[in-house]
Amino acid sequence: MIQLTILGCHSATPRVNAFPTSQYLEINNNHFLVDCGEGTQRQMRKYKVGFSKINHIFISHLHGDHFYGLVGLLSTYGILSREKEMHIFGPKGIKKATLQMLKISESHAKFNMIFHELSSKESELIYEDDRVTVRTIPLTHRVYTNGYLFVEKEKPRKLDMLNISGYPEIDKADYLNIKAGRDVTLPSGEVLPNSTITINPPKPLSYAFCSDTSYKPDIVPLIKNADLLYHEATFLHDRQDLAKKTKHATAIEAAQIAKDANVGQLVIGHYSGRYPDISLFKKEAETVFKQVSLAKPGAIFTVD
Amino acid sequence: MIQLTILGCHSATPRVNAFPTSQYLEINNNHFLVDCGEGTQRQMRKYKVGFSKINHIFISHLHGDHFYGLVGLLSTYGILSREKEMHIFGPKGIKKATLQMLKISESHAKFNMIFHELSSKESELIYEDDRVTVRTIPLTHRVYTNGYLFVEKEKPRKLDMLNISGYPEIDKADYLNIKAGRDVTLPSGEVLPNSTITINPPKPLSYAFCSDTSYKPDIVPLIKNADLLYHEATFLHDRQDLAKKTKHATAIEAAQIAKDANVGQLVIGHYSGRYPDISLFKKEAETVFKQVSLAKPGAIFTVD
Repeated sequence: MIQLTILGCHSATPRVNAFPTSQYLEINNNHFLVDCGEGTQRQMRKYKVGFSKINHIFISHLHGDHFYGLVGLLSTYGILSREKEMHIFGPKGIKKATLQMLKISESHAKFNMIFHELSSKESELIYEDDRVTVRTIPLTHRVYTNGYLFVEKEKPRKLDMLNISGYPEIDKADYLNIKAGRDVTLPSGEVLPNSTITINPPKPLSYAFCSDTSYKPDIVPLIKNADLLYHEATFLHDRQDLAKKTKHATAIEAAQIAKDANVGQLVIGHYSGRYPDISLFKKEAETVFKQVSLAKPGAIFTVD
Repeated sequence: MIQLTILGCHSATPRVNAFPTSQYLEINNNHFLVDCGEGTQRQMRKYKVGFSKINHIFISHLHGDHFYGLVGLLSTYGILSREKEMHIFGPKGIKKATLQMLKISESHAKFNMIFHELSSKESELIYEDDRVTVRTIPLTHRVYTNGYLFVEKEKPRKLDMLNISGYPEIDKADYLNIKAGRDVTLPSGEVLPNSTITINPPKPLSYAFCSDTSYKPDIVPLIKNADLLYHEATFLHDRQDLAKKTKHATAIEAAQIAKDANVGQLVIGHYSGRYPDISLFKKEAETVFKQVSLAKPGAIFTVD
């Protein structure tokens, strides 16, 4: 199961009801924070994100609207007497700047901060446990930037108990092997193919986070068939010149990526302050790809 | 005229409707920002503080809840194409940490940031123009901390036109001298004492900002007769032990400082998250000093 909570989804210029990029991702019982713009900790409180659940933070790039909330959040974890280690993934340089700011504030955190600094221009596997993998999605922006692809690990096959009950000679001790895909040889010598006594596990789900970036068709193979895609759409097509210049994408371009990658649904955000009516982003994207939603603070997107 | 707008007034732990310390001060047509906790720029938008009016920022100390909004604000000034120089007053170290964070974000501000780093343990004059002076108020906290005393410059005396009109022989060219306090010698040789043809200018007003600090009676002479005092009151008297330990003040202690300094009115804030009902702070302070108000985001305090 994937559940994505938008904490902030606007671009850098401050506005009253706009919050810079930050997302809380639950995937297969892992809890990740993705980007951490200024005010993220307050948004976490507002949308009831349990601070102690987060053990991994992924930062796309070091522009302030994706990163300036990190120091305050880590400082707060110190105040909350956190003891568990915290893993922080982000561009090279994130460690020094963050630790220096914490040091000057005499923020005496007792937990270990483990920084995983990224510098590769190729997609790489940066995190793996028994439930999920995380790979970078190299993006093109004014500074070194990665998106992140979160993919559930395949689950064991499920026992087809209706069929198994027809074979009382199958020992329960064999169930783990059967779930792992093994065939069963009965005492009679008969071989039961695994497919006759198990059913397919649920399809592993995936979420691709892509912000900030120019239109970059190169990423399509990396995010192919993702169930959920967040792609920035800072501008509408009317300002494609500005999108190119500032290395951002338009709503149409985000939708084109979603279409070419055949994703399940697209969420767009990172709207420029130039547009008072963000519903135009959805309308524009829908001309290319139908399953489009607008990111809004507090919005939750679920794939089950 | 003094007008103080509270942008944030809570202590460090994040809460939904709590914002860390930041204030916008208008005094004698100067516009200052005092402290800059995370989210200050958003609060400035919310309470319609003109970004371009601010040319001087005063930071009391480098704890995150008074300072972590500075980098984001300066970065935003860059995005807004600010050209005017910005003066930043704060403890030694503020420059390096701020500039490093801006550098790693490749925030290409075109305006000059002029840092005035403070390290004296004595009160010092740190800013002066033709309308106002600013002095430090050395405080006692877990890290090096200053409050700030903002004082209007004395204005010229006002002409008493009713009395002057009785002396048509006084040349208008002399008015500037008269406003400056000079007596006038009439052609007849008669000397008009200045006090007979002028009236007192309005009393220069002053605002003292004191956060964060232990109870520190030493500051009383420095802030004597201030028209407006903001003093932190992180705890109630029931947690005086914790106030001492963390080098904060209680509501009673803030009120005692206000009383001893004979200030016009006291505003308290920096409430610990332990107290859901902040009206208790006012009640407690009023047992010692009557003119108490609670700081709240968006509250405006005017002295005219």
